[in-house]
Amino acid sequence: MRATLIYGAGDVRVEDVPDPKLVEPTDAVVRVVRSCICGSDLWPYGAKESTPHGDRIGHEFLGVVEETGSEVTGLQAGDLVVAPFVWSDNSCDFCREGLQTSCRHGGMWARDGIDGGQGEAVRVPQASGTLVRLPAGEDPALLASLLTLSDVFPTGHHCAVTAGVTARTSVTVIGDGAVGLSAVLAAKRLGAERIVLMGRHADRTDLGREFGATDVVAERGAEGVERVRELTGGDGTHTVLECVGLRPAIETALGVVRDGGTVSRVGAPQYADVPAGFEVFLRNITLTGGVAPARAYIEELLPDVLDGKVEPGKVFDRAVGLDGVPDGYRAMADREALKVLIAP
Amino acid sequence: MRATLIYGAGDVRVEDVPDPKLVEPTDAVVRVVRSCICGSDLWPYGAKESTPHGDRIGHEFLGVVEETGSEVTGLQAGDLVVAPFVWSDNSCDFCREGLQTSCRHGGMWARDGIDGGQGEAVRVPQASGTLVRLPAGEDPALLASLLTLSDVFPTGHHCAVTAGVTARTSVTVIGDGAVGLSAVLAAKRLGAERIVLMGRHADRTDLGREFGATDVVAERGAEGVERVRELTGGDGTHTVLECVGLRPAIETALGVVRDGGTVSRVGAPQYADVPAGFEVFLRNITLTGGVAPARAYIEELLPDVLDGKVEPGKVFDRAVGLDGVPDGYRAMADREALKVLIAP
Repeated sequence: MRATLIYGAGDVRVEDVPDPKLVEPTDAVVRVVRSCICGSDLWPYGAKESTPHGDRIGHEFLGVVEETGSEVTGLQAGDLVVAPFVWSDNSCDFCREGLQTSCRHGGMWARDGIDGGQGEAVRVPQASGTLVRLPAGEDPALLASLLTLSDVFPTGHHCAVTAGVTARTSVTVIGDGAVGLSAVLAAKRLGAERIVLMGRHADRTDLGREFGATDVVAERGAEGVERVRELTGGDGTHTVLECVGLRPAIETALGVVRDGGTVSRVGAPQYADVPAGFEVFLRNITLTGGVAPARAYIEELLPDVLDGKVEPGKVFDRAVGLDGVPDGYRAMADREALKVLIAP
Repeated sequence: MRATLIYGAGDVRVEDVPDPKLVEPTDAVVRVVRSCICGSDLWPYGAKESTPHGDRIGHEFLGVVEETGSEVTGLQAGDLVVAPFVWSDNSCDFCREGLQTSCRHGGMWARDGIDGGQGEAVRVPQASGTLVRLPAGEDPALLASLLTLSDVFPTGHHCAVTAGVTARTSVTVIGDGAVGLSAVLAAKRLGAERIVLMGRHADRTDLGREFGATDVVAERGAEGVERVRELTGGDGTHTVLECVGLRPAIETALGVVRDGGTVSRVGAPQYADVPAGFEVFLRNITLTGGVAPARAYIEELLPDVLDGKVEPGKVFDRAVGLDGVPDGYRAMADREALKVLIAP
């Protein structure tokens, strides 16, 4: 079969790889119907050291079950399923607490001999725990929104939930990438009435407004902080959803949060330290969030996606076949595309 | 009257100062019955630059109301009252949310022309909001415990509350100073069944055991982290109460917290950055806490203190008159005394 491999910074190729086979009795093999490129894939695309062999990549996909191992329950060949971006047994103590990203028997896609999602098929470990059946057909718009359950929509939702967003909290979302826009959508879905979106790309912030943003702040740094404070009577917002992962973004987050408020971050940190010293302490700011246990949220979010109450798939503004994946990476890295859908 | 002034590092003096007088109609004058020295007073005692005039110091006191301004309600001369370590109107939006440390009309003792607590009397701004009446006589042991409502006990309580301590959470407390021991007491009061106290001073950790600690870890750094993990099946504890404020303490806190858990800090940070990068993000650790809004908790904690259900005053292991204050600072700085009570 064909799958995407990354050989180093800027070097993504689609090549023949061995077909996936059941290895453990808890495995399933899934034929991929939709996959996509994640903002976090752009970190290795920007900086990965060259490897002679290439590494599999991709961690978001939905597809059709082709085969199941002898210990797999609740799934059968032909089921349409979505995979969260971390696989897990969904039964250990961490999973039962809703922290499947810390599963005692789980792990990441495209690491340690596990397939990546940007290919024609995937061997899925811990299939009963990992995969969620989708009671849906193959309507393309719906598939796009269902695919976001793999990562980007639950990630925005995790950010909003851990920040404590409710109808009574004002919200700032930092970042107009697909995660930031998903966080806007998630905050709106949780009832937030005031959502300030910080982002500079008008086409993206327009989608942010459609998703529920009430204000857009294009300024960055101290000027951006000042602008959000102006919009909020000088106080900042109760919650801040940091969806970038760079040090200036977390600095901005701490600058626009109201005293006693919460900054949640879901942008994978590209920094080692958070500037949370004495001043942040005096203001009783909470820092929370982290890698989203998407698996914990899929059942909760699924009905609203199926009903069309939310359409998170609108973050996809380009679709490619497998052959188009390398150019999809380029387009996302160049900010030509917001998020690229792959139909293998 | 006489009051304590700090002239620089290691230079604390008790001198004559003008008697306090009502200035604003919202003021009261309180004759101090008990005050004390705080661990946080040791930061300027260790490092303050010399000043020719000396600065007032002290932020914990209880006493008797002597006089009230025309707009003060709910208080009258003769009332025994305790003052939290931040004064506040207790009526602005932040105060109503329980964040009196961010009061729009409040501030700190011993700053900007406001008296310090380590003297014979204090002018109390926003007296109606700040002071809490104590339905108690002058039993010395009870007075000591009531005095802790000013800072150290609510600070431990704030740490436990913001960390989310309940009967179902395991707890690590970092630091065997008066705040750490108060945090143990607070965690126990909130129902925690497993409380690991990290501290090296046997006399202090003995009091910690009396307050509710189930395990004591004397090791520090990586060894201490390892030891706590051993005690908790490798996982660490759900909550960590960081009661020191130094960088190694926050590093230890992040090392002993369980995935998905919470580190709360109430030790005033003597560091600018928290090492909360990618690994902490992957583990979904929350960092919370901050300067404790003691005022928010006094009514809740008071009954248990009056009933003797908790005896937070046991953290005082030395008592001095005003003349003994300079030696009290020395004794606390030298770790000879845990916490020094002042009976002016």
